[in-house]
Amino acid sequence: MHAYRSHTCADLTAADVGKTVRLSGWVNRVRDHGGILFIDLRDHYGITQVLCDPDSAAFADVEKLRSEYCIRIDGEVKARDASLVNPKLPTGEIEVFIREVEVLGAAKELPLMVFGDQEYPEETRLKYRYLDLRREAMQSNMKLRSDVVASMRRRMWDKGFREYQTPIITASSPEGARDFLVPSRLHPGKFYALPQAPQQFKQLIMVSGYDKYFQIAPCFRDEDPRADRSPTDFYQLDLEMSFVTQQDVFDTIQPVIGGVFEEFGGGRKVDQTWEQISYKDAALWYGTDKPDLRNPIKMQVVSDHFRDSGFAIFAKLLEQDGTEIRAIPAPTGGSRKFCDRMNAFAQKEGLPGMGYIFWRDQGEGMEAAGPLAKNIGPERTEAIRQQLGLGLGDAAFFLGGKPKAFEAVAGRARTVIGDELGLTDKDRFAFAWIVDFPIYEQDAETGKIDFEHNPFSMPQGGMEALSGDPLAVRGYQYDLACNGYELVSGAIRNHKPEIMFKAFEIAGYGEDEVRKRFGGMVNAFQYGAPPHGGCAAGIDRIVMLLADASNIREVIMFPMNQRAEDLMMGAPSEPMNEQLRELRLRVVPPES
Amino acid sequence: MHAYRSHTCADLTAADVGKTVRLSGWVNRVRDHGGILFIDLRDHYGITQVLCDPDSAAFADVEKLRSEYCIRIDGEVKARDASLVNPKLPTGEIEVFIREVEVLGAAKELPLMVFGDQEYPEETRLKYRYLDLRREAMQSNMKLRSDVVASMRRRMWDKGFREYQTPIITASSPEGARDFLVPSRLHPGKFYALPQAPQQFKQLIMVSGYDKYFQIAPCFRDEDPRADRSPTDFYQLDLEMSFVTQQDVFDTIQPVIGGVFEEFGGGRKVDQTWEQISYKDAALWYGTDKPDLRNPIKMQVVSDHFRDSGFAIFAKLLEQDGTEIRAIPAPTGGSRKFCDRMNAFAQKEGLPGMGYIFWRDQGEGMEAAGPLAKNIGPERTEAIRQQLGLGLGDAAFFLGGKPKAFEAVAGRARTVIGDELGLTDKDRFAFAWIVDFPIYEQDAETGKIDFEHNPFSMPQGGMEALSGDPLAVRGYQYDLACNGYELVSGAIRNHKPEIMFKAFEIAGYGEDEVRKRFGGMVNAFQYGAPPHGGCAAGIDRIVMLLADASNIREVIMFPMNQRAEDLMMGAPSEPMNEQLRELRLRVVPPES
Repeated sequence: MHAYRSHTCADLTAADVGKTVRLSGWVNRVRDHGGILFIDLRDHYGITQVLCDPDSAAFADVEKLRSEYCIRIDGEVKARDASLVNPKLPTGEIEVFIREVEVLGAAKELPLMVFGDQEYPEETRLKYRYLDLRREAMQSNMKLRSDVVASMRRRMWDKGFREYQTPIITASSPEGARDFLVPSRLHPGKFYALPQAPQQFKQLIMVSGYDKYFQIAPCFRDEDPRADRSPTDFYQLDLEMSFVTQQDVFDTIQPVIGGVFEEFGGGRKVDQTWEQISYKDAALWYGTDKPDLRNPIKMQVVSDHFRDSGFAIFAKLLEQDGTEIRAIPAPTGGSRKFCDRMNAFAQKEGLPGMGYIFWRDQGEGMEAAGPLAKNIGPERTEAIRQQLGLGLGDAAFFLGGKPKAFEAVAGRARTVIGDELGLTDKDRFAFAWIVDFPIYEQDAETGKIDFEHNPFSMPQGGMEALSGDPLAVRGYQYDLACNGYELVSGAIRNHKPEIMFKAFEIAGYGEDEVRKRFGGMVNAFQYGAPPHGGCAAGIDRIVMLLADASNIREVIMFPMNQRAEDLMMGAPSEPMNEQLRELRLRVVPPES
Repeated sequence: MHAYRSHTCADLTAADVGKTVRLSGWVNRVRDHGGILFIDLRDHYGITQVLCDPDSAAFADVEKLRSEYCIRIDGEVKARDASLVNPKLPTGEIEVFIREVEVLGAAKELPLMVFGDQEYPEETRLKYRYLDLRREAMQSNMKLRSDVVASMRRRMWDKGFREYQTPIITASSPEGARDFLVPSRLHPGKFYALPQAPQQFKQLIMVSGYDKYFQIAPCFRDEDPRADRSPTDFYQLDLEMSFVTQQDVFDTIQPVIGGVFEEFGGGRKVDQTWEQISYKDAALWYGTDKPDLRNPIKMQVVSDHFRDSGFAIFAKLLEQDGTEIRAIPAPTGGSRKFCDRMNAFAQKEGLPGMGYIFWRDQGEGMEAAGPLAKNIGPERTEAIRQQLGLGLGDAAFFLGGKPKAFEAVAGRARTVIGDELGLTDKDRFAFAWIVDFPIYEQDAETGKIDFEHNPFSMPQGGMEALSGDPLAVRGYQYDLACNGYELVSGAIRNHKPEIMFKAFEIAGYGEDEVRKRFGGMVNAFQYGAPPHGGCAAGIDRIVMLLADASNIREVIMFPMNQRAEDLMMGAPSEPMNEQLRELRLRVVPPES
């Protein structure tokens, strides 16, 4: 017989009754029933009930076992009484009578119980991660993550992509965040950087003629602590293709992402049609470029109904350039209580409040209620109702000003309204491509033009478009939104050196500066660069959505804490003097 | 029609004659045949011949094309004359008459030609890696690497392993090499390290109950420049299993590695039976723990034949403790010319020479020739011949002393003999497990006992074995040798804290020191650690063997040069002052 096991703890069924078996695993739980000791023996695959009575020679040994001891047992498989069969357990028909037990690894008193649902502070969970990871929910999350990544790989291979690994110790990749630096010992005073993303390398792979690249790529960013982001690194499904249009990229990645959600979504509905929404429309309709489309509410411009109306605040506002009034329809929200609650929400968000109208029937047919309705009168109120397609029992909220100033709050109000009124279908994954991102944005204070996203995207209209108003230039640049998150981001790249230099010039970067910062790529583009594009999908985020987890650390095996520390391994730590000497570095004392 | 291509450059056959097609790719080569321009248009998939005559409207544009321009063409597929069909090309039956051409990416004058076999200095190849990578041999190596890694993953999944990613920004992992450090900005003065291997994490994954782990894992070591090693990082197929014996690990990995060699070996013979050879026998038989078993030569101890013999040097040597005489049989090596050449080899290796005997027939039957045979006389010479199983036309070489002192040279002599005599079958992959490595070694000068390999292996015989002579203790530790390289290394781990502390104590490390250096793992072992073991296979090395490449940079997409620089991307580079300030670091000027 094998030294440790003849079966796993998920294997044995009624068909094995009578067999002598060997199992190894952990003591999930010991129970004493009238002097007989029952142990739930647990391994990675399942649980088997093993037991021992005082007549057994092994009893004295079994009595000493405690939770999380790792043990091997030899014993005989017996059928459970019909009344004791546990249909929830694959091994629920049998139990194993212990003949012999060996302690493979004893356990000290546990700082964290593996069995049961007790909650522990995060620091405890991270310090004793090897115990935390034994718990059912974590086993399930880690298996899910591994299976999702495997499925992504299979799907990419099936589409003719090959995975190529790009350097991890490399040069700074200016993605806008902070680099982690790595001091060079062979070149003291010089530093490598860990890549914020394989952006330049994947584009170089296209210039090198590899046609279809993907990688499950680690990305490194030295981020300030934020609740829901790894402070050090994250993984993305990174892909790039040559000789493609934007639509080709969509057609490639949709079945991969959609397929993964179908496969691991646990039966939740996965949208099959992925709408393409312009950045501009997304801002108007949803107040964000990562809309949650499970929420059916779509905002609308209603400025005309308030122009020169009796509601002086809005009427006056509309006299200023660039202002608008927008409505958030709230079907079934037609009660003063709800409208007041939303008004309070707006105040909490720093606005003076949020105007509203709601439609009720107090026995005299439908009437529009709320101060706003009174101010603008029944005709305008009715016109608004018709535009928004609302009726009895519904409400609408109104925000005005320069869109940039209130769009984000409007988006959050839309979310709260959808949630509170139960309009948002939680059991669904709703996807949409957000397209036509502007290439440039203007700093409101300095008036300076800078890149809105990253500088590598091809402007729609190419060189010609760059000769006009920069703020009107849209890029072949896109995001995939799902349930309010940005899951994927990508672009068709700017592969023409002359267009690239022009694009940088508009943002105030001279040719020298561009060559200095992106020299590797810009040089490469001078030697027959193919048109190419791609995208990157956030794996941690995808697994979080599938696992229904609200914290990224629930889907990472050994995460850092929020202060970017690994308390289990003791990182970061003081270096040895010898190490600093070799690197020719000195740590500067803090300024007093 | 698609914006860039209706077909790839490998697609078109006689069945497509008459079609109007669109192709994109690179100008591999332009030829002018009697005024007609022939272009080999190349993409990732293949080559298609496209052409243009002076009557075509596109001729003026085609005339401007030069090597490595990236272009799109529209044209008509025509059958080639039977006499011009190229059976070596999948598209060799057809050619495409260009109607229209668009330059997608122009190319400057090339520092490195893609077409043809011209050799370039390595610095040129690395600086213009995107051109180098377009060459046929590199395309083939990169595809091979990607396919090998994909195959490994498939094979591991099929065996029930899941891939789990371990941290890249973490604590120092004491594997004996130098760490790359990463300064922490949030904790100035403290540093992370990049992992030399995921050793501790994979063991923690076992303690966490995951049963079967693997990872295509990047490993980071700050190595001094050496011709055939990446100075920064390498990849390994890393795996670990719980509740297993050494044989289980062998049974798991053999079909994976063997399968990959079968799949990608290009028909070269792959040994099906992998012998297990003890470390001690490997040293004796092959003079190395990474023997090349394609070479049939096995060395033998022949001390007895020289004891008290007329060959005074050996006879005297044998009077000292711990000395031995060993023979290297050299079938078909029986000529004075060859024996003298091998003697010269030994002298070049720093030995006074290498005694030899060879057997010839100068018309009077077989006779043993060489000074050594004369000194020891015919009886002893004949006994040696019989022990070594040699005959007419063969030779044997002899080395003596303390084995440690000459073993390595003997091993190299065996290699040269096998190569020069054509005994080594080059078209074969020969595998053997080297087992029973000693846990400890003794420093010849200080007498200090230290770990021979890594300190995590389980000693055979456990605690009891550690009570005896440390130098006699063997570990459950093993390497896989293939064609003279170490491809895999692994062990059954020491998972019992008390045995671990004892093992460290013997090497002079106190409990505090152990806790300080391996705290994460040692703490974990106190909470029910399962018996576990595994191994790691060197991916770069495996791909090198399969690609028949002699330099690691031939199988890495973007390798560093030997001075650990990336000339294309400009790494390492001077940091910005702001970055150093944030990290509270100062670079110390070199000592004058």
